Amino acid sequence: MLPRTYDNQVCSVARTLERIGDRWTMLIVRDAVLGVRRFDDFQRELGVARNVLTDRLARLVDEGILEKRAYQERPERFEYRLTDKGMDLWPVLVSLMKWGDRHSPADGGPPTLILHRDCGGEVNERFQCVRCGADVNARSAQAMPGPGSLRRWPSAVL
Amino acid sequence: MLPRTYDNQVCSVARTLERIGDRWTMLIVRDAVLGVRRFDDFQRELGVARNVLTDRLARLVDEGILEKRAYQERPERFEYRLTDKGMDLWPVLVSLMKWGDRHSPADGGPPTLILHRDCGGEVNERFQCVRCGADVNARSAQAMPGPGSLRRWPSAVL
Repeated sequence: MLPRTYDNQVCSVARTLERIGDRWTMLIVRDAVLGVRRFDDFQRELGVARNVLTDRLARLVDEGILEKRAYQERPERFEYRLTDKGMDLWPVLVSLMKWGDRHSPADGGPPTLILHRDCGGEVNERFQCVRCGADVNARSAQAMPGPGSLRRWPSAVL
Repeated sequence: MLPRTYDNQVCSVARTLERIGDRWTMLIVRDAVLGVRRFDDFQRELGVARNVLTDRLARLVDEGILEKRAYQERPERFEYRLTDKGMDLWPVLVSLMKWGDRHSPADGGPPTLILHRDCGGEVNERFQCVRCGADVNARSAQAMPGPGSLRRWPSAVL
């Protein structure tokens, strides 16, 4: 779909969007950050067509963003876990979320809060804890339903 | 294209992607941040079909991310400028860029450097100047071709 000139764009924004520049892809990564791992759980949470989900998961595995692991034999079952490369997309997700909180607010307030796991302080737009000042990353952060949440949270998580 | 259940996702990531979840859209915003303003300049930089560009620009104006202004009469000509809401997408762009720099590196190094306008220090992943420690935002930052740049920079800018 993209023209050849696109390949010539030496730009890390363009290169990133080549890999994750699709709404479903970012929402899969979002759910993976929240702890969703199994095909049926992604499918239920996202309401995405199964063939589209299969395609996007395969691409994310190819890109090294998700890792596919067997968690059961007979019948064999797989789950998808974020790699370190995938976890590094956390700042992109948080930046998208903060923009949405500000410019496309939900009734009642932010649907999701990002908290610093150690002290419970909120994480700001610079990925720092507003309470203790610590630099926060994907592993030291915890997402919680916020005041605007309708509690449609991934059931695999809650 | 998205199912109804999507609307029920009270999530600021999903809401943001509804507005900007398209590769061309983010690349238009990227070029606008770099100073591109005119239809023909966007078209040339992106190599995107004119009808697609027309559609994406109209959507960005509808969303209040770009503002359309006449800059000439007879014939009337328009340019597109980022609103404050559009400028607030800067952290999303920088996060996408930093991820690409790390995980999809270009030959020779980062194609683009984000510098703190006041002191010339590089801006890190937390949008802070590594030289003076200042918090940096879209207005106090300046993008420059980096070591991996092929100098295919928007000609409207350089």
